[in-house]
Amino acid sequence: MRFTHLTDTCLATAIGDLGLSDDAFARMLMAAAPAHDRLCQLCESDRLPALTVVRGDADLDAARPLAEDWRARLDDVVVLGTGGSSLGAKTLYALADGDGPRLHFLDNVDPETLTVLQARLDPRRSGLLLISKSGNTAETLAQTLVLLPAFAQALGRERLPRHAAVITEPGKRPLGEIAARYGLPRLDHHPGIGGRFSVFSLVGALPALLAGLDVAALRCGAAEVLDAAQGAERVEACEPAVGAAVAVGLLQAHGIGQSVFLTYRDALADFGLWFRQLWAESLGKDGTGLTPLRALGTADHHSQLQLYLAGPRDKMFTLVMPGTAGQGPRMDAELAGAVGAEALAGRTLGDLLDASARATAETLARAGRPVRRIEVAALDEATLGALMMHFMLETILAADLLGVNAFDQPAVEEGKVLTREYLKGAPS
Amino acid sequence: MRFTHLTDTCLATAIGDLGLSDDAFARMLMAAAPAHDRLCQLCESDRLPALTVVRGDADLDAARPLAEDWRARLDDVVVLGTGGSSLGAKTLYALADGDGPRLHFLDNVDPETLTVLQARLDPRRSGLLLISKSGNTAETLAQTLVLLPAFAQALGRERLPRHAAVITEPGKRPLGEIAARYGLPRLDHHPGIGGRFSVFSLVGALPALLAGLDVAALRCGAAEVLDAAQGAERVEACEPAVGAAVAVGLLQAHGIGQSVFLTYRDALADFGLWFRQLWAESLGKDGTGLTPLRALGTADHHSQLQLYLAGPRDKMFTLVMPGTAGQGPRMDAELAGAVGAEALAGRTLGDLLDASARATAETLARAGRPVRRIEVAALDEATLGALMMHFMLETILAADLLGVNAFDQPAVEEGKVLTREYLKGAPS
Repeated sequence: MRFTHLTDTCLATAIGDLGLSDDAFARMLMAAAPAHDRLCQLCESDRLPALTVVRGDADLDAARPLAEDWRARLDDVVVLGTGGSSLGAKTLYALADGDGPRLHFLDNVDPETLTVLQARLDPRRSGLLLISKSGNTAETLAQTLVLLPAFAQALGRERLPRHAAVITEPGKRPLGEIAARYGLPRLDHHPGIGGRFSVFSLVGALPALLAGLDVAALRCGAAEVLDAAQGAERVEACEPAVGAAVAVGLLQAHGIGQSVFLTYRDALADFGLWFRQLWAESLGKDGTGLTPLRALGTADHHSQLQLYLAGPRDKMFTLVMPGTAGQGPRMDAELAGAVGAEALAGRTLGDLLDASARATAETLARAGRPVRRIEVAALDEATLGALMMHFMLETILAADLLGVNAFDQPAVEEGKVLTREYLKGAPS
Repeated sequence: MRFTHLTDTCLATAIGDLGLSDDAFARMLMAAAPAHDRLCQLCESDRLPALTVVRGDADLDAARPLAEDWRARLDDVVVLGTGGSSLGAKTLYALADGDGPRLHFLDNVDPETLTVLQARLDPRRSGLLLISKSGNTAETLAQTLVLLPAFAQALGRERLPRHAAVITEPGKRPLGEIAARYGLPRLDHHPGIGGRFSVFSLVGALPALLAGLDVAALRCGAAEVLDAAQGAERVEACEPAVGAAVAVGLLQAHGIGQSVFLTYRDALADFGLWFRQLWAESLGKDGTGLTPLRALGTADHHSQLQLYLAGPRDKMFTLVMPGTAGQGPRMDAELAGAVGAEALAGRTLGDLLDASARATAETLARAGRPVRRIEVAALDEATLGALMMHFMLETILAADLLGVNAFDQPAVEEGKVLTREYLKGAPS
C-alpha cells in the first residue's frame, strides 16, 4: 500500500460522544454499498473517463512530443488556467525537481502579478499553455488577450506556434479560434471530464510532462486505488467508501459540516487546495455540502489549532502525514543542550515534523474530535496518484450519499453574466 | 477614509431571512457599547500596547540602524518564526517593490524546504532574523539549530553577529541564550503584546524596514483607525464595533459560524492568512468561536463559489475589494472581437478583477447570503495599517461579545508536550 487510511479515531468507541457510533457507522456503510455499486457500474461501462483514463496512455501521444520539444528549448512555461485547469497540475508540479522549464501558474487576474511575470519572461525562451475546458473562461481569455499578442509581437507570428499551445474541448470555442488564427497546436480537453476531475487527463499530464514528472507512475498509483475500489467485494473493503461514510455520517449524526484537510509537507500545500475545490464544488449544492478547510502543518498549529481543539464541535479532521522521521538536516546537539532544548538535540527537522503530526492527531482525538489519519510512506508520483484517486472516489461516493450531483456547478453562472454586465459599465 | 466599510447587505432588509433583523442588530449594538467602552479604557490606561504602539516610534530606535546596515550589505534575509511571528510581516512584505534584500519566511519545518533554501543562500550576503516571543518555539529553535551553526561555520563565529539577530521577550529564553552565546543583537519582543497582535511592533516593523517599507505610514494609517474608534461618541460610529456586532449577531441569530474572508489582490493573500490566525485563535475557545475561511478572488470563484452560493447557509462573507479598474495591461481589442469576447475588448486586467469582485458581492447578496464589502482606494502601507488595525479592534470586540478572552490560547499546550514526548521516542 502506498498509504494507510485510518478512521478508528472518528468513532465513538475511540473518542466519545462526538464520534460516529457503531450503529450509525454500520447504517452509513449500508447506504454506501449501493453507491459503491453504482460507481463500479459507471466505471465498467466507461462512463467516468476522469477515472478510467489512468488505465491507458494513448491520449498522451500528442502531448509527449510537445513536452519533449518545449523541455529542450524553453526556460519558462506559463500555464494560463484557473480552478480545475490549474490546481491539479500545480499539485503535481510540487514534486518537480527543477529539471526542465520553470512552470508559472497564472490562475488569477491580478494586474500586478501578470505585469511582474511578463517583465521577467524572455519570449524566445518561454511558452504559453492555455487551458480552459469551455474555451471561454474570462480569466484565461483575458490573460491570453494580453500575453499572446505580446508574444506574437516579440517573436513574429510565424514563430508563435512553437511557443504556445491550447487545451480546450472540441468544437467552436474562443480559445480554439485563437489557436486556429495563430496556427497553434490544439489538444482536446476530454468533453466527458470536468475541470476539477481532470488531473489525470492531459490537463494535469501535459504540465507534468513539461516538468519531467513520471506520468506513467502517477497513473499507475491511481489505477491501483481504482482497481482496489472496483474489486472490493464488500463496501467495508473500499477505503474511499469508508471515508465517505464517515464524513457524511458525522454530518448527519452530529452536524459536523466542516472538513479540515491538514497536510504535513510543504509539497502538499497545493494538494490541499486541489482537494478543497474538489470537495466544495462537488458537494456544495442544494443547500447541503461539507465545507473543506485547507491547513498546513506545522505552521497552522500556530494559527488554527486553538480553534480546532477548543472551538465549536463542528469539524472533522483529515491528517495527511508523510513519514519524515530521519529526513532533512540535523539540529546541532551541543547548542541544543546548552540552551535547554534537549528534546531537539541531534534530531532532524523531519523528526520534529513527524512527531508534531503524530502529537496533533493524538491531541485532537483526546479532545474528542474526529480525526482520520492518512499515513504516507514516500511522496512521489505514484503515491500522489493514489491519493488523488482516493479523494476523487471518496468525493463521488459522498455526493451519492448526500443525494447531490458530484459533477455539476450550477450556481456560478449568474456571477459570470453579472461580471460581463459590470464590464460593460452597465450593471442591471 | 482609506477604506469604506459597508455592512448593509448583511441585514435582513437587504437580503432576506438570513440577514440580521433590525431588532437583532440594534440589540447587538447595545451589547457592543459597553465592550467599546472597555476597549477605550484599556487603550487610555495604556494596557493594550499592541494597539497604542502605533502612536510612537521610540521602539524603532534599535531596529532602524540594524535594518539600514543589513539593507546595505545583504541580498537575502531568512525570517525564522511561525504563526504570529511570521504572518504579519509576510502580509506587509507583499507590498515591497524589490528594493532591498529578499525576505524568506521560514514558518514551517519541512526538511526539503529548508534544504533547498539553504543551498541557495550565500551566508556572506545573507542574514537570519530569529523571532519567537517565548524564545522557545520548537519550530523556530529547530531551524535555528540547523542554520546558525552552519552560518557560524561558513563565516567564522566572529562575523556571525553581523548576520543574525534575535527578537524575543526579555528574561532567560533559549533564543536569548543563543544570542548571548554568539554575541548577536537581541531586540525585545514587548511582553505585553501577543504574537498574533504583534504586527505593529518590532515583529512586523523590522522585516518591513528591511524591505524598505514605510513603517511610519503603516502606523499612521493604523493610528487613524484607532483614533476614530476611541473617538466614536456612539457605538454605531465605531466601524470595528459594527463589524463585530454583525458577525456575532449572525452567529447568535442564525447559527452562522463561518466567516469567509475573500480578498481581491494577490498582494492580499497573506493578509487573509494573518486575519485567519487572528480570528481563529482569538475567538475559538470555550466551545464557541467563528471559523475563518481564507479565499482569494477571482481564482477561488472557480473553486469555492458554488459552495458559497448553494451550499449550507452557515457562512457570512467579507470581501476586501481594492479598486483596480483601469489598472494593468490592456486586452487586445481586435483579437477579443474576432473570437466573440467583446466584453473584454480593450479592457484592462484590473477592469475584469474589479467587475468580478462587484459581481460576486451582488450575486452572494441576491442568493440571500450576508456580505460585507470593504472597498479600498489604494493598496499601500497606510491602508494596510488601517485595515489591520480595523480587524484587530473588531476581533477584540467580537471576543468581548462572545464572552471569551481574545488574548490567550490555552488549548495548544498539550500538543507541544506530546510532541516532545514523541521526539524522545517514548509517547505516553
